[in-house]
Amino acid sequence: MDEQPENPKNQTNPLGNESAKFIKSIPTYGRFPLLDHIQYPVDLNNLSIEQLEQVARELRAETIDVVSTTGGHLGASLGVVELTVALHAVFDTPRDSLIWDVGHQAYPHKILTGRRELIRTLRQPGGLSGFTKRSESIYDPFGAAHSSTSISAALGIAVANHYKAKHDPSYKERSAIAVIGDGSITAGMAYEAMNNAAVAGPGAENLIVILNDNEMSISQPVGSMSVYLSQLLSSRHFLGLRDLAARVASKLPESIEKRAKRAEEYARSMMTGGTLFEELGFYYVGPIDGHNLQQLVPVLRNLRDAEHLGPVLLHIVTQKGYGYKPAESSGDKYHAVSKFNVITGEQTKAPPGPASYTSVFSKELLKCAEKDEQIVAITAAMPTGTGLDKFEQKFPDRYFDVGIAEQHAVTFAAGLATEGIRPFCAIYSSFLQRGYDQVMHDVVLQKLPVRFAIDRAGLVGADGATHAGTYDIAYLGCLPNIVLMAPSNELELMHMTATAAEFDEGPIAFRFPRGPGLGLKLPSQAEILEIGKGRIVQEMGEQTGKEKGGIAILSFGARLTECLKAAENLTEQGYSPTIIDARFAKPLDTDLINQIARNHKVLITIEEGSRGGFGAFVMEHLAGNGLLDNIRFRPMVIPDFFIHHDTQTAQYAQAGLDATSIVKTALKAIGA
Amino acid sequence: MDEQPENPKNQTNPLGNESAKFIKSIPTYGRFPLLDHIQYPVDLNNLSIEQLEQVARELRAETIDVVSTTGGHLGASLGVVELTVALHAVFDTPRDSLIWDVGHQAYPHKILTGRRELIRTLRQPGGLSGFTKRSESIYDPFGAAHSSTSISAALGIAVANHYKAKHDPSYKERSAIAVIGDGSITAGMAYEAMNNAAVAGPGAENLIVILNDNEMSISQPVGSMSVYLSQLLSSRHFLGLRDLAARVASKLPESIEKRAKRAEEYARSMMTGGTLFEELGFYYVGPIDGHNLQQLVPVLRNLRDAEHLGPVLLHIVTQKGYGYKPAESSGDKYHAVSKFNVITGEQTKAPPGPASYTSVFSKELLKCAEKDEQIVAITAAMPTGTGLDKFEQKFPDRYFDVGIAEQHAVTFAAGLATEGIRPFCAIYSSFLQRGYDQVMHDVVLQKLPVRFAIDRAGLVGADGATHAGTYDIAYLGCLPNIVLMAPSNELELMHMTATAAEFDEGPIAFRFPRGPGLGLKLPSQAEILEIGKGRIVQEMGEQTGKEKGGIAILSFGARLTECLKAAENLTEQGYSPTIIDARFAKPLDTDLINQIARNHKVLITIEEGSRGGFGAFVMEHLAGNGLLDNIRFRPMVIPDFFIHHDTQTAQYAQAGLDATSIVKTALKAIGA
Repeated sequence: MDEQPENPKNQTNPLGNESAKFIKSIPTYGRFPLLDHIQYPVDLNNLSIEQLEQVARELRAETIDVVSTTGGHLGASLGVVELTVALHAVFDTPRDSLIWDVGHQAYPHKILTGRRELIRTLRQPGGLSGFTKRSESIYDPFGAAHSSTSISAALGIAVANHYKAKHDPSYKERSAIAVIGDGSITAGMAYEAMNNAAVAGPGAENLIVILNDNEMSISQPVGSMSVYLSQLLSSRHFLGLRDLAARVASKLPESIEKRAKRAEEYARSMMTGGTLFEELGFYYVGPIDGHNLQQLVPVLRNLRDAEHLGPVLLHIVTQKGYGYKPAESSGDKYHAVSKFNVITGEQTKAPPGPASYTSVFSKELLKCAEKDEQIVAITAAMPTGTGLDKFEQKFPDRYFDVGIAEQHAVTFAAGLATEGIRPFCAIYSSFLQRGYDQVMHDVVLQKLPVRFAIDRAGLVGADGATHAGTYDIAYLGCLPNIVLMAPSNELELMHMTATAAEFDEGPIAFRFPRGPGLGLKLPSQAEILEIGKGRIVQEMGEQTGKEKGGIAILSFGARLTECLKAAENLTEQGYSPTIIDARFAKPLDTDLINQIARNHKVLITIEEGSRGGFGAFVMEHLAGNGLLDNIRFRPMVIPDFFIHHDTQTAQYAQAGLDATSIVKTALKAIGA
Repeated sequence: MDEQPENPKNQTNPLGNESAKFIKSIPTYGRFPLLDHIQYPVDLNNLSIEQLEQVARELRAETIDVVSTTGGHLGASLGVVELTVALHAVFDTPRDSLIWDVGHQAYPHKILTGRRELIRTLRQPGGLSGFTKRSESIYDPFGAAHSSTSISAALGIAVANHYKAKHDPSYKERSAIAVIGDGSITAGMAYEAMNNAAVAGPGAENLIVILNDNEMSISQPVGSMSVYLSQLLSSRHFLGLRDLAARVASKLPESIEKRAKRAEEYARSMMTGGTLFEELGFYYVGPIDGHNLQQLVPVLRNLRDAEHLGPVLLHIVTQKGYGYKPAESSGDKYHAVSKFNVITGEQTKAPPGPASYTSVFSKELLKCAEKDEQIVAITAAMPTGTGLDKFEQKFPDRYFDVGIAEQHAVTFAAGLATEGIRPFCAIYSSFLQRGYDQVMHDVVLQKLPVRFAIDRAGLVGADGATHAGTYDIAYLGCLPNIVLMAPSNELELMHMTATAAEFDEGPIAFRFPRGPGLGLKLPSQAEILEIGKGRIVQEMGEQTGKEKGGIAILSFGARLTECLKAAENLTEQGYSPTIIDARFAKPLDTDLINQIARNHKVLITIEEGSRGGFGAFVMEHLAGNGLLDNIRFRPMVIPDFFIHHDTQTAQYAQAGLDATSIVKTALKAIGA
């Protein structure tokens, strides 16, 4: 098992090894009268609710200050400052397990759990992760980054605690808490976990799911009625449904219309067992104001101490970006920000540079959709990240945001494709992993022309290993019937988008990197590429003078730029290589590959993906045709370990996929 | 797009090409006065409900007779005979799209949709598929086999119809119908689809989901109360909720306690909008008796003709195996049967033979669990198929059936593993595709010791391409941190099960075939294998006399038996090969592989998996160490096309992975 640090309360270095090197170099911040005395959650134990409110104010200020220097997910973290304080004050973490779904809202949690000294290394190379991470702290019992995993994990821990209680009764009272947003709970995985929780057996009664609802219409505190109901229900001596119904009826305020209406809805559902969560076997409490510690703390205490409730769902209402005016008034609530000025809220603009791959895809898709009304676009809750927000603006009735639901997104697209509609499914490489079975079973097996626009392919920088798009060449390329492309630059991406739009023979996917392209001037009209044909970028020079050619480099994807750099270097050394942009991993350009295999001594493949991908397909083709025997074949892939957050350039250097490594591989292979 | 036959009403051959060859050889059955006149659904149009009842009786008898000669999924098909008749009588298929979730209940549907002449080829080599399949008939608008895809696909079709209606108004009134069981609806994917349906926009109002509930406590027709409510609600002029509540209250029979209680629950939830389905935005109707055409037909007509209901969920109650006494009284309701005697219901017993891989795994896991109380077992609704039913009997409190929920199963296991519990996740290879992201993000990235027992690896026979376990070596092997094993026989499986039980360093998986082992005598005690070490099964003989050795065959998995057959043949021809059982695809036994690469002229790898798997990993290792250059490397994998249902032996011959193909590959490579 990956080393998780031991309980930091007993350690000199409270943090995992990977961050230890920072401890000396980062100053301690000392502006906060209460927060400065809190190193671990245990330090919250004897504080009054009023003092906790002060801690929350200081924690919010510190979080804003930190993210102003690091960038990151600010809005979500600001929304859970009070919840973070309340949870650590009421529960006995890490004995009680606290799991933040996605984990990008866990900056305040990191500050309260021994990581304040390192918090300004957040998302920086070698620093703290932007998500929760087991190897970082014992207060992170389960790492995250992809959404909707927390309930399953917490349920597993709750059930495990039950087993462990057989030998150590102290495990019996441990809670396992999952904090999940109203977006994340739409994923099928969360439903599967909730559907299982009530029947999972002993231990599951210690599961507490906190639904952090920050999108519902109630953005104000929800008023006395819901507080009354919540406290009533969460107290140990709660009433029978019949009595409750009577009480609710007599207490309903009749004047405050809108609030009363919502309260009535909740009251009604609580009376009839009618909420979705109760139908799934949860004891439902809420909604309560997630920014009000006077409400949160007693409710959480009740839930902690209550017995025989079964798994609990506490529904809290918060506001993303809460407590920081620029965030509150921003459209995206400062969901993910670059560095910014704390006073004005003004974010540091990236220096003007080449357009991103995402935006080139987005623009070309719009162009295609203007010409072809059969084109529709599907995102799984990532309209901005995938660039489909532009599509929505232009073609709102041909745009589908299906929620965090990659499985459904893929098969919904397949259904559309059966009727001749041309769906583009724009999904990040690492998230498409969640729709893998659907790609195989519903799209590829039926050879349906669904277009997969796979963003964030390859290494992705600050989001780290969880978001790296490392595996899609392997996991898609092993499937029959699919066409798989990768552009070497943004012009090629433009062509591939247009090519996918026109291709009706079966599934087609194109994978492209995070970040800017090369800054190429783009033509008004894209080319339709011939399926399965690569292009020779640079023919081998005369000067190699080897018996059977020299070095050929076959690149799939955007490493081509590094290949060309390497080629310059190699040429200087007298080995001018052939450089080929493969364009397609499936189908392979077998004519071209056969030709270069016959005419060269060394064949290097390079790709922004794992083993078992493009290089393997080329090898299998060559071996099957007896052409592997007379060439020195060297596949260059993302190596078989996880590469943590860093700059993309540094990540690729670590992966051994930069120009330097290409030169080294080539020279070694040629025997120079 | 895969060829789907055109509308069979206009064709001489109503079926897809792949089944055409059977038409002449299969006699037409002529025992049924009504059924014999029904070739297509259109032939049901003018029949009275009484006549439809007669059709259903005949269809049931024919289905029983057919499956008695072919084997297959009888229980589910018998449960939907009336529904099948009602749907095809009321709706205008294939104009209206009818999608059977999973598709194993679609035998009666196949009989009514032009495939009666071929129905006795069901699941036979070259015959009809045991599931729905687009290439088989235009009445199968979306193929299936894995569960819970139908709502997504039907929603896609409903929305597509809306788009097409812009140019052809006839599309406007088309319904898209998904029939899904109460098991399948527990999968996250179904929830994602339902969650999206109400907001997916125009077209979605033509989605009808039929929940075929055959496990709820009501196994008898549910009585007049629910019929009343259903018809009331599904008629075009249904009442407001307030009026309905009053009516319901006055009509409730007070005597029939149990039924009334259930009816009351439903009435209450309908009054308050309280069912889970209504909370998800569906118009809920039900429950009604799914075997009563007097109820089904008018309700379906109402739903067909109603407007502005939005997406509808019709809840029907059926009995698995209905109408056939031996099935009704059997514990598993004849879920999947071999051939049987129609009169007695007695199933043909398979001739006594070697124990299956599944049972060897199951037994060894029990042994391990007896010694180690930290071992728990998890299945995603496949207790019998995975052999975990035995585990449940012995250790009910250490056994978890989480429902059709592979995503949750994997992360739940990860949660357990964080606390030192030792979970075995027993999931078929093709179904683990649904938990792929969870394997990567929650297990492998965190290096948690979850044990994956991957059954049905490789080609699986009659269940065909959807159930083939072809891709797991590729999709798991590209991930860091995981140990991946495959046994060459059932003794090795015993060792690997025990090895996985003891291995706490990280994730470990072992994949094994469907079907019987070799019949080896198994010892009482399993061996704990050394991680990453293969075994030499047969050393190269002297007689090859080649300059640098001869042929080495490196087998990963149960193809070893074919390798040994091939070795005999090769030895007769003077090329006695070295045979190695690799045992591990990750980590590779690099010492052994380096050694055989140095000492042989030809290296063949063979595996029961796709490209990008074991062979690719061996190649990448050799290339990285310069050892690929001096060996003729030949990876043998399941080729890059889908292999349809047949015997496993025939499938492997088609895949080119039998002894004959190994000999051919070896001789060609050696240049003989």
